[in-house]
Amino acid sequence: MSTAVRTETGSPVDRILANYASDNPGTRAKLYRILTSGRLAGTGKVVILPVDQGFEHGPARSFAVNPAGYDPEYHVKLALDAGCNAYAAPYGSIQQVAHAYAGKIPLILKVNNHDTLVSENDPIPAQTSSVMDALRLGCVGIGFTIYPGSSVWREMYEQLRELAEEAREAGLAVIVWSYPRGTSLSKEGETAVDVAAYAAQIAAQIGAHVIKVKLPSENIEQDAARKVYEKEGVPIATLAERVRHVVQSAFDGKRMVIFSGGGKKGEEGVFDEVRAIRDGGGFGSIIGRNSFQRPHDEAVKFLHKIMDIYAGKAE
Amino acid sequence: MSTAVRTETGSPVDRILANYASDNPGTRAKLYRILTSGRLAGTGKVVILPVDQGFEHGPARSFAVNPAGYDPEYHVKLALDAGCNAYAAPYGSIQQVAHAYAGKIPLILKVNNHDTLVSENDPIPAQTSSVMDALRLGCVGIGFTIYPGSSVWREMYEQLRELAEEAREAGLAVIVWSYPRGTSLSKEGETAVDVAAYAAQIAAQIGAHVIKVKLPSENIEQDAARKVYEKEGVPIATLAERVRHVVQSAFDGKRMVIFSGGGKKGEEGVFDEVRAIRDGGGFGSIIGRNSFQRPHDEAVKFLHKIMDIYAGKAE
Amino acid sequence: MSTAVRTETGSPVDRILANYASDNPGTRAKLYRILTSGRLAGTGKVVILPVDQGFEHGPARSFAVNPAGYDPEYHVKLALDAGCNAYAAPYGSIQQVAHAYAGKIPLILKVNNHDTLVSENDPIPAQTSSVMDALRLGCVGIGFTIYPGSSVWREMYEQLRELAEEAREAGLAVIVWSYPRGTSLSKEGETAVDVAAYAAQIAAQIGAHVIKVKLPSENIEQDAARKVYEKEGVPIATLAERVRHVVQSAFDGKRMVIFSGGGKKGEEGVFDEVRAIRDGGGFGSIIGRNSFQRPHDEAVKFLHKIMDIYAGKAE
Amino acid sequence: MSTAVRTETGSPVDRILANYASDNPGTRAKLYRILTSGRLAGTGKVVILPVDQGFEHGPARSFAVNPAGYDPEYHVKLALDAGCNAYAAPYGSIQQVAHAYAGKIPLILKVNNHDTLVSENDPIPAQTSSVMDALRLGCVGIGFTIYPGSSVWREMYEQLRELAEEAREAGLAVIVWSYPRGTSLSKEGETAVDVAAYAAQIAAQIGAHVIKVKLPSENIEQDAARKVYEKEGVPIATLAERVRHVVQSAFDGKRMVIFSGGGKKGEEGVFDEVRAIRDGGGFGSIIGRNSFQRPHDEAVKFLHKIMDIYAGKAE
Amino acid sequence: MSTAVRTETGSPVDRILANYASDNPGTRAKLYRILTSGRLAGTGKVVILPVDQGFEHGPARSFAVNPAGYDPEYHVKLALDAGCNAYAAPYGSIQQVAHAYAGKIPLILKVNNHDTLVSENDPIPAQTSSVMDALRLGCVGIGFTIYPGSSVWREMYEQLRELAEEAREAGLAVIVWSYPRGTSLSKEGETAVDVAAYAAQIAAQIGAHVIKVKLPSENIEQDAARKVYEKEGVPIATLAERVRHVVQSAFDGKRMVIFSGGGKKGEEGVFDEVRAIRDGGGFGSIIGRNSFQRPHDEAVKFLHKIMDIYAGKAE
Repeated sequence: MSTAVRTETGSPVDRILANYASDNPGTRAKLYRILTSGRLAGTGKVVILPVDQGFEHGPARSFAVNPAGYDPEYHVKLALDAGCNAYAAPYGSIQQVAHAYAGKIPLILKVNNHDTLVSENDPIPAQTSSVMDALRLGCVGIGFTIYPGSSVWREMYEQLRELAEEAREAGLAVIVWSYPRGTSLSKEGETAVDVAAYAAQIAAQIGAHVIKVKLPSENIEQDAARKVYEKEGVPIATLAERVRHVVQSAFDGKRMVIFSGGGKKGEEGVFDEVRAIRDGGGFGSIIGRNSFQRPHDEAVKFLHKIMDIYAGKAE
Repeated sequence: MSTAVRTETGSPVDRILANYASDNPGTRAKLYRILTSGRLAGTGKVVILPVDQGFEHGPARSFAVNPAGYDPEYHVKLALDAGCNAYAAPYGSIQQVAHAYAGKIPLILKVNNHDTLVSENDPIPAQTSSVMDALRLGCVGIGFTIYPGSSVWREMYEQLRELAEEAREAGLAVIVWSYPRGTSLSKEGETAVDVAAYAAQIAAQIGAHVIKVKLPSENIEQDAARKVYEKEGVPIATLAERVRHVVQSAFDGKRMVIFSGGGKKGEEGVFDEVRAIRDGGGFGSIIGRNSFQRPHDEAVKFLHKIMDIYAGKAE
Repeated sequence: MSTAVRTETGSPVDRILANYASDNPGTRAKLYRILTSGRLAGTGKVVILPVDQGFEHGPARSFAVNPAGYDPEYHVKLALDAGCNAYAAPYGSIQQVAHAYAGKIPLILKVNNHDTLVSENDPIPAQTSSVMDALRLGCVGIGFTIYPGSSVWREMYEQLRELAEEAREAGLAVIVWSYPRGTSLSKEGETAVDVAAYAAQIAAQIGAHVIKVKLPSENIEQDAARKVYEKEGVPIATLAERVRHVVQSAFDGKRMVIFSGGGKKGEEGVFDEVRAIRDGGGFGSIIGRNSFQRPHDEAVKFLHKIMDIYAGKAE
Repeated sequence: MSTAVRTETGSPVDRILANYASDNPGTRAKLYRILTSGRLAGTGKVVILPVDQGFEHGPARSFAVNPAGYDPEYHVKLALDAGCNAYAAPYGSIQQVAHAYAGKIPLILKVNNHDTLVSENDPIPAQTSSVMDALRLGCVGIGFTIYPGSSVWREMYEQLRELAEEAREAGLAVIVWSYPRGTSLSKEGETAVDVAAYAAQIAAQIGAHVIKVKLPSENIEQDAARKVYEKEGVPIATLAERVRHVVQSAFDGKRMVIFSGGGKKGEEGVFDEVRAIRDGGGFGSIIGRNSFQRPHDEAVKFLHKIMDIYAGKAE
Repeated sequence: MSTAVRTETGSPVDRILANYASDNPGTRAKLYRILTSGRLAGTGKVVILPVDQGFEHGPARSFAVNPAGYDPEYHVKLALDAGCNAYAAPYGSIQQVAHAYAGKIPLILKVNNHDTLVSENDPIPAQTSSVMDALRLGCVGIGFTIYPGSSVWREMYEQLRELAEEAREAGLAVIVWSYPRGTSLSKEGETAVDVAAYAAQIAAQIGAHVIKVKLPSENIEQDAARKVYEKEGVPIATLAERVRHVVQSAFDGKRMVIFSGGGKKGEEGVFDEVRAIRDGGGFGSIIGRNSFQRPHDEAVKFLHKIMDIYAGKAE
């Protein structure tokens, strides 16, 4: 499925890659790989399957509803069957399948993780694998979570900086999960539109090639920001407008921003979100629990519908 | 006893090793060594003798009942005499015997330890030896303890990650003692089935080849998990079912999970536990105090009975 | 615009470079580049455009007023169009444009940053890029912020020391933003003249080639200093006198001290400040929000006027 | 005095060295050097002169009573004159004399120290010299103090681990001062027999070749230990029995355990302690203040008597 | 002024260097350079000009009284004009002048500093330059401040240890400012004679070649020390006696101890102190503010008088 894809000059993929012109050929090749794999190959849109919930939430909470998911192979196969652009997971899950799947589908090694045995108000994940692991396992990039707003933000940003530099030198792509969280934010503030936009900007500045944020709500968290949104009349009323603002906040769309689906929900709810992402100029979705917690064939169908919305083949 | 063993294609050992296909030949050879040593050679089951209690609990508490055990050689010889698959101990104990026993029986260097002179509610062991030590002493792997649930979990996981990567590069196996403990867990929660399953998942994700957990109780610690266990009807009523769930939580059985015996207890109690591990699809036992705190010949007989249960030679 | 400029012996540039005689030719060449680029080339004065507000204050607060600024290319082009001596920004912004602009205008990589999602009374920025990044991206130097007066001063100074040494070895220039801040200072003390002078001295001692401070107020923060200012009659009544004192405090003017404009304000207010910097012997300005928050052509005109004041072409 | 000594096969020295068979020839040669130097050469017993009190207690408290001791050369010469097996001291003291004494008497570099200007309830020494220093200065080994029971135990053990590994690789011996101390222990507990035995075990496990502990009292500190001592009837009534138990706790006597004399006391008190060490199977003494705080000739005579007790030449 | 000086065998310089026989030729050459430079060349006495007050106290407090001192060149020239043995300053000040003065006068790079914008009860300086900087700038040695008695003593000592080892390997001299300070000491205790002697001992043990302490007062800070001073009748009544005791505490005079002058005071007060240092066997003075806060010619005359007292040319 990820055989070489030839893209026309001036194609969506070329236009996107033009924004990564300072990167080395190795990294650009990996971004090209992601953009030309799966059912959305060549469209400039991406749908990624991430499965780190076994680590982040625990195995039963993640997989008991669909026990086939206890086996890491289930997920990479699902991603392949559904034609996702890439599959992302922590070390163990990737290592379990890399010998058989590296090359068939772009693999993203999620190099830091947090479990929920310890609850922290100002969270910081642990590094659980390395850039060298990603290279050995044939991955196209690393994934890293930061929690802007956490009191230990500095340690996270510096860890990301180091790993991102190492990854770029090795010709890998850097995908950043930028999830605001911590005692300096209200619960609503974690998805407030000003905070989501800020989170996208921070990830872009530290060097993310692809940025994953949560879909922004209409809330505005910071007073200093609210004044500006109101004074300048920044349009944030609809989800599509908010998506557009977040994308704008990542170098005016010169960095790929994709959005996460959050907890499992009804199909139509997800499709509506996808339409808003599409309309707001978002680059795609990263969909975990909504995929793998459904039965395999249902999940494939569900993901195909999402891809069709992005590709303009379905409304 | 650990001379080369030829295993048939499709044998239990081959089936297990197939799950470690992303590992390098060095590491796979060490796992093969463990699986083809001792009385259980070739069965796909393992019984390991671990002796770190001198460090962890103090010498008199560990050895006064059977003073021959003050001498580290006693233990490695016991493991050899009983036909264990491997012997695990801290640096000093391994170093004391390696010149004479490396090669005769697989040695596992336990590279971190905690003493009980200081009592900590959120414990973290100290690194007490290194991967290079393991190589110099002819060991097949390193052992490392993590305490998921401890507030200093991040430091432990990152230390494990570094050592595990170094060990894998050096062609060693990584055995992780995953013992939930810390102020975020209740006392009962340390062995709750949801927590034990989570502990196995975490160790698997950080890259353990072999995972050692405690036998899980029927308790469920986390509310978010309880809802899922109840809703999905995850079978956890019997010890065998709980073992099966923990094994499932380690990549659906694609990682070897073995279980520890805990404090010294009656023989039949141990044998019942072993039967449950066997019935639940566990890969074996790691038995310390129940072995070395008995007289030598009694311990050998006791371990042989356990091995026979695993091998199907005894009920 | 930054083609080779030939400066006469005894020119202002030569006189300045003579004060950097212990530096290696690589670093001296970079300082020469800055001093011979743009409309002020050869005058010994510099105006630098810094844009790190997207990171430091958030994207909407920085760019909503002039949305073209969401795109990093807008800023480097503005700097080029206006004839600034250099453009300074964080990693992402520089990386976005370096392939097209490195060589056309001196680029300064701002290697540490702080966001405002977390508010800290004793702040310390996170390192967000490296000297190696600066080299790869064709920059002439690195920018680094310290907050003298913060309780974590030591960690910042030592991080600066390391990066500055590495930068000098690599033939780069080191530009230090020295912004007093922290619980040991009053709010007014952050710009008090004694503190500003002290901040310039500290940056000079740790090895800054160019020092950026805020314009000093008439306040004196420290009692021990006040006695000396009064006893010795140090002239600090006018802004020009205070500028002179701060410049004097940086090795009697042997290190280039430039001054920041602060928040957006009326044009004449800025021009008055520039006149005071000029009269006090300051080496120039670093002007962010007052530039890029105006429309492009207005900003160019505004910057030209500032440059003309420095160059003696306008009052 | 430390010219080559030929020891017979089966001699005490050979029997001891057989327990260090996993060590490299370099380290074994250093242990051989210690065991074959001085008046006790070849007996398997050792008396070491340690002088770190200038650092640990201050110069006047240590040397005012015998001011010749302000000069480090006094001590190494005293050790040589008295026929000690080795001389141990911090960097400065060793460095002051190494050019003249390295080779004449085994030198042990004490690589960590604590002063008494700061009093800490949970102490941890500072590293004050390195393995490379020990090599440059011609030392046979390094000395390192740990305080089991201190809340910062982990940092100490890990520092020891690193230095011990580096020392062993360099063919040096590792001598560990294992002194229980910290808020988790009562004052009496610091020398309680269970704690002393535990301290010896810990040092042995982390890789000490020679272990120095304080003479154990009859106290038992830990309840869990007390139960075992009482149940198993571990003999600890006499000092000789307690020495035997501590030696047993260091791998059943396969690691050399030596005992410290503590504060200056009457000669007969010291001799009685030495007899108990001898009778309990201890390997010797490390005697500081009781030596160098006496006049030179008196100290030599005093040390000779101790050596004669160990050698069986005096009762 | 620092051209090669030929010293006679048995000269004061030779006698001093004999105490550094374990050091490598590179370091010994640097000590030789210091001892054979300036007006006191060959006498075995040294007067060093240190100027770190711009960093430590702020520029105006240090230089407003004699504004020529804002320029670092003023100081090195003053040291040269007055015939000092060496000039010591932080990185920036040395870097400003090294290209012109390295070789003409021994330069000492002060590699750590503290400012007074933050006031800390348990202080620790920041490292502000490196051994490699010292080599690049042609310095003969590094200067490092420790604050014995500070609760963060361990971090300081270990930082000194590392830098000192690196400096010695590079053939540089190590000069330690040993200034007791911190919450474990009373204000008077900072200069108490027992504490000053202890501070000298600590610096000597960690490897200082030259030790700078403050002149000791008659106070005794520590009770355990007081008993010994009283019992042994250590003579500490006069300043000369106290100097002698401090010198004795640095390996019985085998390490060079020099004394600082403290705040600016009357000339005769300084001369009296110098006489006491001379009479007590001290090796010289390090005189900052008392030099550079006077007009140039007055300072030269003042320093000459001090040198003459040391040289026996003046009473």
